[in-house]
Formats: sequence, C-alpha cells, structure tokens
Amino acid sequence: MSPVSQQYSSDIQAKIDQKTKPLGALGAIEKLAAKLANIQAQRNGQWQQLDKLTPRVIVFAGDHGIAAKGVSIAPSDVTFQMVVNFLNGGAAINCFCRCHNIDFQVVDTGMCTPLPAELQAQHHNFIESRVGAGTHDLSEQSAMTLAQVDACVAAGEKISLQAIEQGCNLFMFGEMGIANTSAASAITAAVLGLSAQESVGLGTGITQAQLNLKKQLIQRGLDRLSLNEKKHQAYTQLAELGGFEIAHIVGAMLASSKQGVPILVDGFIVSAAALLAEKLAPNIRDYLIFAHQSDEFAHQRILANFNAHPLLKLDLRLGEGTGAALAYPLLQAAMSFYNDMASFESAGVTV
Amino acid sequence: MSPVSQQYSSDIQAKIDQKTKPLGALGAIEKLAAKLANIQAQRNGQWQQLDKLTPRVIVFAGDHGIAAKGVSIAPSDVTFQMVVNFLNGGAAINCFCRCHNIDFQVVDTGMCTPLPAELQAQHHNFIESRVGAGTHDLSEQSAMTLAQVDACVAAGEKISLQAIEQGCNLFMFGEMGIANTSAASAITAAVLGLSAQESVGLGTGITQAQLNLKKQLIQRGLDRLSLNEKKHQAYTQLAELGGFEIAHIVGAMLASSKQGVPILVDGFIVSAAALLAEKLAPNIRDYLIFAHQSDEFAHQRILANFNAHPLLKLDLRLGEGTGAALAYPLLQAAMSFYNDMASFESAGVTV
Repeated sequence: MSPVSQQYSSDIQAKIDQKTKPLGALGAIEKLAAKLANIQAQRNGQWQQLDKLTPRVIVFAGDHGIAAKGVSIAPSDVTFQMVVNFLNGGAAINCFCRCHNIDFQVVDTGMCTPLPAELQAQHHNFIESRVGAGTHDLSEQSAMTLAQVDACVAAGEKISLQAIEQGCNLFMFGEMGIANTSAASAITAAVLGLSAQESVGLGTGITQAQLNLKKQLIQRGLDRLSLNEKKHQAYTQLAELGGFEIAHIVGAMLASSKQGVPILVDGFIVSAAALLAEKLAPNIRDYLIFAHQSDEFAHQRILANFNAHPLLKLDLRLGEGTGAALAYPLLQAAMSFYNDMASFESAGVTV
Repeated sequence: MSPVSQQYSSDIQAKIDQKTKPLGALGAIEKLAAKLANIQAQRNGQWQQLDKLTPRVIVFAGDHGIAAKGVSIAPSDVTFQMVVNFLNGGAAINCFCRCHNIDFQVVDTGMCTPLPAELQAQHHNFIESRVGAGTHDLSEQSAMTLAQVDACVAAGEKISLQAIEQGCNLFMFGEMGIANTSAASAITAAVLGLSAQESVGLGTGITQAQLNLKKQLIQRGLDRLSLNEKKHQAYTQLAELGGFEIAHIVGAMLASSKQGVPILVDGFIVSAAALLAEKLAPNIRDYLIFAHQSDEFAHQRILANFNAHPLLKLDLRLGEGTGAALAYPLLQAAMSFYNDMASFESAGVTV
C-alpha cells in the first residue's frame, strides 16, 4: 500500500494555524485533525473539509486452545456467551457504540461453539467466518495451519471491504476470545524479539500462579518458533501463535489501509495485530491512530515500536474495541474543529 | 455544603461489579460512573439509574489589568473579539459543544469593552454580569475590591442556579481573559504557598523574556498579599490577584455543588478557581471531576492538592472550557455503561 502522501500537508497545517487560537493550543486534537485530513486527501484528493465520519466497530471473536490450560480468568465458554451478549446489545462495547452512534458488527472467526442458526438469522450484524472450532494450544503445537492463516486474512479483508462499500470511513476493530492475551503476548514477543518473561502480563486479571504458568506456556510456543526457519514471516508467526480473530484483524487492517480508510486502534490485542500488519505492509503506520494505552508492559513496547502516543489512558483492560469507541468522540471533535472553527480572518480576531 | 453521602456506595459498586466484564476492567469509566451515581443519590435519592445528562458549558470572560504589561501573547482586545467569536459559534469551544450536544453560554464579567447592546440582543446565550472594565493590575495594587469579589461570587451563584432551574445537571465552566494565567498562577501560589518562580508557566505560549517578566510581576502581587493579615482568606486572595471571571467561577462552583450538581473541571484556570472554592467549602471536592491535565506545572500542583487524576492529557492550552467539553463524552459513556450494560445474570454469562 502507499504511504500517506504529504502533498497537502502544508495546506492542511496552514488551515489549522489560521484557526482562532494560539498556535498549537489544541495539542493532540490538532495533530489528529491533520492526520485525518492527510489520510482523506490521499484517499479522495479532498483536504479542505473532512467528510462526515461513518465509524464502525467490528468485533472478531475466536477461541484459543491454550485456554484449556487455565491461563485466563474465565473458560472458553465465555467467548460464546459474550458474543450472544454483543448481539443482544448488553456488553460494554454496545453501550459505547449506542452512546456515540457507531455501527457495530460481530464476527465469529472460530469459537469452540458456533452460534445456532436461529440466532444468526435474528441478527443482521452477525458475520459467520469460522475457520475452525478454536485454535490448537500454542504451547503444544502450531495454533493453526498456514492455510487457516490465509483464510483468516482473506476473510478479514473481505469483511473490511464490504464495510467500506457500505460507507464506513473509520474502522475500530475489537476482539473477544478467552486467552487471547496469551496469543497477543506471544506475537509481540516474536515480532519484537522479547522473551515471554518480558511480554506476558496479567491480562484481565489472573493470579500470580496463572501468570507464571502463562509465561512458561508461551515461552514453549516461542521456543518452537525460533527453531523455524521462517521465523521472520508474519504468517508463520500467526500460524504458530494464533489466533483466528487476530489473523482476521490483520487482514481487515491491510484492506482498510489499502483503501485509505483510517483505523482507530484499540488496545493490546489489536495492537499486536497491527505489529503483524506492519510486517506485511510497512506503510500501514500512516493509517493507524492509537486509542488507548494499556497497563500491559508488552503494549507499551508495541506503542514504542510505532512511536505512538495514544489518546487515552483510562486503565481499561477489557478489549471488545472499548478503548477505540471511547476515544472516537475525540476524532469527532477534531473533525468539527477542522471543518467548522473560524479563522482569524473570518472572525475578525487580530492576533 | 454537605459531603456526598456514601450511603448507597456499596449498592452502586455492587451494580457495577455485576456487569458482564472482569472486575474493574473498565478502569476510570467505572470510577466515573460510581462518582456520578453517588452524587445523584445525594441529590435526589436515586442511584439505580443515572438521569440523562443535560450538560452546559458557561464561559466567563473578563479582562486583567496586568495584560497591559505584556505578559500574554495577545492584547486585551482579543478577549472582546473572542467573545464575539463565541457568540457567532466560531471558536473551538463552540465546535466541541455542537459536536457533543452541550448547551453553551457566555458571560461578560468585566471586559475592557462591553458588548454593544444590539449584539447582546441578538444572542440569547449571552449574559451580562459586568463588575468593572477589566481588573486593576495585580502587580501594582489589588486587582479588585472586596465588594467586587462579593458581587462576582454572588453573580456566579445566580447564573449557576438559573442554569439548574433550566435543567442543567452537569456543569463545565470555561474562561476567556487575556492574561488570566497570570491571575491563576498567582492564586495557585497564594493558596498552595508557592513562589511565582514555581507557579508561573508559559500560558498559551509566551517568550522566555515575557516569562521572566510575568514571574517578577506576579511575585509583586504575592509579596503584597503576604503583608496582608487576612492572607488566608479566599476573598482577600481573589481581591488582590483577580480576576472577575475567576471569582464568578468560584461562585458558580459553590452554588452548583451546594445543589448537588457535579462539575467537570476544565484546565488550569478553572482549577485555580476550584482551589479557592475549596477554601470556602471544603466538601466541594466531592462534586468535582477533573477533565484535563495541563502542562503548566502549577496545574499539576493543584491536581496533587485535590488528589485528582484527570480523564485526558492532550497537551491543550486554550481554556474556554475545551478540556471539559472534550472529556464530556467519557461521562456519557460512563452513564451508558451504568444504565444499560447487562449483568452476568441478565446476560447468562457464567463468570
């Protein structure tokens, strides 16, 4: 994909600097407006006004074989139960999407238990994209096959492209999958060259004993990977470490950014997907806006890799895309600032 | 005023802990929801559901005699020009209020130049509450008289009560006044026992020479105050250091919190007003939610005084209530979470 052209960036900055405020006084909001305007200019040649945002949260759900080892606070059943909760509108992400007028979809990328057909039929915002019934346990063997990785990435691309056809011009990808901080920690370690000791954290809140176990198990997966001659390839890392939902997000990110649609990146797990997407498409960084800084140490390493300063730091550790949805109103504000705020000239302000 | 009763706080926390998420996983959003619910219970006895938020930004504008000494990036004329900009809807705070459906009012507490009668008549959201035509220069003499302080506080109270009668149940106070970081720095120094060297910063972005001058001038005001036997009284500090808009905000905060209406506190200048309000009513802290952490060192001292961890840190240095307006959607999200998110029982989630 193309990097975001800087062709109009001085025009965009000049427009911002003419607003009735001291230079730079809106800090991160100004940078956000400039970023959105540059991305839009790249996409459709228009930088003078930002198009109305049509945002969408897509939550990718999948299960992880490693969950059976007890590395999470909850069993894999909860992935399915939470997907039903999403469809019934009862989860945190539903509340935030309703509150901020964000479209919402859920994708089953491979839960242990598929959603019954009658439930699928009732919910037009459900997408079935199953690649298996949970990944294999990454501490024992490859979490998935390369063919499964291919299928996930292609499906993620397709889901993203369909949303763009429907008018979506800002993506927030979320995830639900018991034990997926294990996969995300392993991926972060593999991509950034960390040990499990460095990359594994408390997730949604496990005990110290669980944490020690989680580190041991993830190190096993990492050790296997380092014997693999293809270790530097993102697809191999995905296959070894999982999971289905993360691989879907990688695909969705690739397609979105290729289409010039910005991505408001949620927390740790989605950021781990972004690491892999960047390996496949180094320019993707230009399309990413980071929403929330997690307390997970590995997330801070990812943010440092991207030289990212997230918009929020609210001690969230939930996933589902909640960090992105909470940050979204700042993008609305940046758009409103860029489009509607008076210039010194138009307002007759003399400084 | 009464402290916020903790009578229902365990019920409120139990409701939050039954939501379909790991305990505490929504971090600051959960704390925000609990705070809003406790305040509302104090006000009307209802904690089970939060009332729909009817937020209002009130920007208090006033001029400062010390501006003539060149301590700001702009002359006092700009206060008037920006008030006209506010009324025409062209300022940053207007954009954010429109974007997030926040009611908006502007108060002239004493600009150098009053708003012409025909402009006043055109704008029903303008309130005239003039106590003078700019304060005196705090580096030379008392910025205002004690009678003026009384008038400002009483007027601020009245404006706040009127908004509450009109249905406002969440306040965001903003300010516009060239050189009012000087007054705010001086107030912070006086209340917290700092020197001008410690309390004075770059404001909206002055030069090093201006910064040195600003420190010298403010120290003169502080030296005069320390000779005053009433130095520990908030009214004396306000009279010596100003300004009209800050004194109005003190009054507005006192009346709001007395009525049990929470205040989303903007940045440095509004926080300095909160310091004085706390001297007059120590329980006011219970009603304050801090929106944005400024880079001004003195603001960090104020936040430490209140043991406050603001919701946002976006490098804003504009005022106008912009930090509060940008944080407001997080309160909407907290309300939505508290009112609408499913419980484990209602959603059939087993953990």
